[in-house]
Amino acid sequence: MLITLTTDFGTSDPFVGIMKGVIFRINPHAQVTDLSHGIPPQDIMTAALLLRHAIAYFPSGTVHVVVVDPGVGGSRNPLLIDFEGNYLIGPDNGVLSLALEGKRPTRIIRLSNTTYQLQPTSATFHGRDIFAPAAAHLSLGIAPEALGEPADSFMRLSCRKPVKTERAIIGEILYIDAFGNLFTNIHADHLPQRPRDKLKIMFGAVSIQGLAHNYAAVAQGDYVALINSWEVLEIAACKESAQKRSGAMIGDKVEVTWDF
Amino acid sequence: MLITLTTDFGTSDPFVGIMKGVIFRINPHAQVTDLSHGIPPQDIMTAALLLRHAIAYFPSGTVHVVVVDPGVGGSRNPLLIDFEGNYLIGPDNGVLSLALEGKRPTRIIRLSNTTYQLQPTSATFHGRDIFAPAAAHLSLGIAPEALGEPADSFMRLSCRKPVKTERAIIGEILYIDAFGNLFTNIHADHLPQRPRDKLKIMFGAVSIQGLAHNYAAVAQGDYVALINSWEVLEIAACKESAQKRSGAMIGDKVEVTWDF
Amino acid sequence: MLITLTTDFGTSDPFVGIMKGVIFRINPHAQVTDLSHGIPPQDIMTAALLLRHAIAYFPSGTVHVVVVDPGVGGSRNPLLIDFEGNYLIGPDNGVLSLALEGKRPTRIIRLSNTTYQLQPTSATFHGRDIFAPAAAHLSLGIAPEALGEPADSFMRLSCRKPVKTERAIIGEILYIDAFGNLFTNIHADHLPQRPRDKLKIMFGAVSIQGLAHNYAAVAQGDYVALINSWEVLEIAACKESAQKRSGAMIGDKVEVTWDF
Repeated sequence: MLITLTTDFGTSDPFVGIMKGVIFRINPHAQVTDLSHGIPPQDIMTAALLLRHAIAYFPSGTVHVVVVDPGVGGSRNPLLIDFEGNYLIGPDNGVLSLALEGKRPTRIIRLSNTTYQLQPTSATFHGRDIFAPAAAHLSLGIAPEALGEPADSFMRLSCRKPVKTERAIIGEILYIDAFGNLFTNIHADHLPQRPRDKLKIMFGAVSIQGLAHNYAAVAQGDYVALINSWEVLEIAACKESAQKRSGAMIGDKVEVTWDF
Repeated sequence: MLITLTTDFGTSDPFVGIMKGVIFRINPHAQVTDLSHGIPPQDIMTAALLLRHAIAYFPSGTVHVVVVDPGVGGSRNPLLIDFEGNYLIGPDNGVLSLALEGKRPTRIIRLSNTTYQLQPTSATFHGRDIFAPAAAHLSLGIAPEALGEPADSFMRLSCRKPVKTERAIIGEILYIDAFGNLFTNIHADHLPQRPRDKLKIMFGAVSIQGLAHNYAAVAQGDYVALINSWEVLEIAACKESAQKRSGAMIGDKVEVTWDF
Repeated sequence: MLITLTTDFGTSDPFVGIMKGVIFRINPHAQVTDLSHGIPPQDIMTAALLLRHAIAYFPSGTVHVVVVDPGVGGSRNPLLIDFEGNYLIGPDNGVLSLALEGKRPTRIIRLSNTTYQLQPTSATFHGRDIFAPAAAHLSLGIAPEALGEPADSFMRLSCRKPVKTERAIIGEILYIDAFGNLFTNIHADHLPQRPRDKLKIMFGAVSIQGLAHNYAAVAQGDYVALINSWEVLEIAACKESAQKRSGAMIGDKVEVTWDF
């Protein structure tokens, strides 16, 4: 049973390494892999988005631990959510919710059984004291129900949806990757299927004519719009950073228009 | 047998990856995990501190390799220290010593047996040529004594201890994590146990009334003092960086006073 | 069978984690390790160099996946190259070529069999859709020939070679590591073997007398020249960054002279 870790801890501090140590103490044969530790500090939405777009690529039955947890030590509950044979573990602050959009979890467990936690739990590092131990025990075959008590619901975040009119769709930038590529909330399915070269994509002062098939379709430094690996509209700059070139930020408006 | 790696190599260069390659060449079944590769360049004290606070969370019998080694290729010895069933491997420059504070090692071995090293050893990368091979051979069951000859002692670093008076304790900032949280050298045990809301914490121009239970106990951006996952006094700023807000640096003085 | 990953994806985005997920879906027992994900964006030459200097330290039979792929989704071919029992997987843009300098591959396969790819393949992330699946299938024992069709050749990069005269050699800076050490293209074998203290090393306005045995041979901050772990001439500054101190950049000229 594979365990993935996603945090806003970065990789300079030893916190991720310590979570792995805790897992290996409990289950020396656990298989642990990193999804990302570069979530911006306390950025629940970004972690939730990355988890949503990653889960399908992992084996069914994987345990995904997400620790972006500004409320650590406070009243938010630590949760385990079981859905479609996958397990999500993390604080009940919405970070697990986008992966479950439109889905019904099989079981929701509040991780309240202190037998399966490091004791005493600290006030600042439940990744170490609660979440990593829960994942490790689960990977040993401990039943989810043993880790706590059933809960009815969990906090859900919502992403703003694009607005569609007859000849336009207005969305926004949802994520910016390390290349400076701008991921929007406009899904491929939202756009007219043909002819894609007649679409006009606008953001800020920039206007791009047509959807390209790949980054290399334009000259170096030129903007290019395409459908990316999340199947959403992405704006890039060939071999450069569209973010740096445009100054675009998450939440900036992106508009696609057509006149056919 | 688990092997952990801690270095100041960062993760952009291939050096950590190469150390793992060397380990897998010697023991294809080795289990290798990272503690941190973000130690500031040549910062022996920080590496020593992180190791001290991490070891307890790893399985007993783990091999911890620490390569922060400004004297590489010079006269400092490469060491293996065996204590309480754990193994520490690294240069004899103090980097292994804080984990051994108040402890007596079972064995100290100078890694002098070139049979268990890559030959010829380079002048600049003993992580690859000496330390990774030692860990890998140990994980194969080679006896520590086979890796070199016994040594009597190793270099010890010392952390400055806080100074306690009847109604005050004066310590300093020891570590700053990636969130900008300020870890002090004032241990929970150094402070009066009750009432914690009557303690006054001061550093620079900042004064904080009382110890909180968690970060979320104050409004966003406010300073908060609490006992953290190392069981030391930590100063944070709720959902912000206390370091950026205050400009605090490692070594800055922190004072706790009380009048009861 | 070990799989290594080298990319320009960084570690903040979830892309590397997703490639590992894809591998584990195909082969739950795959052993995956990172070489570097800090290649500068689209820097094919740096990735090719790092791969060249790393392969010898990994077990024979390792699968090395390199995804630095500005032409993703365009006309460049995805390749598998088998040589001396090792496998290199990546785009045919030269990134695999320096590791093969002076070597004849046993087999070159164009990864054209869509059966062993994620379908539909995206236009932006062949690491996920083509390269990771190829490595995973190979690690399961699928024959290289099954993954596509034979190819005759692959794109080769060339590094500039140093120019040698009777009493001098002129090379250049090839790589700068995270410590700010300057790696040149002047191999130890290019230099007169003795007496090394009579060599004079010059770059920009800096002049260094003699090759040292290690970094600690000079005072803190002083420049030092030595033969490093790649067996090339390196210029460093003791416990500081030679890059920051000198402003040197990749491609800058370095000259070694002697008068014996």
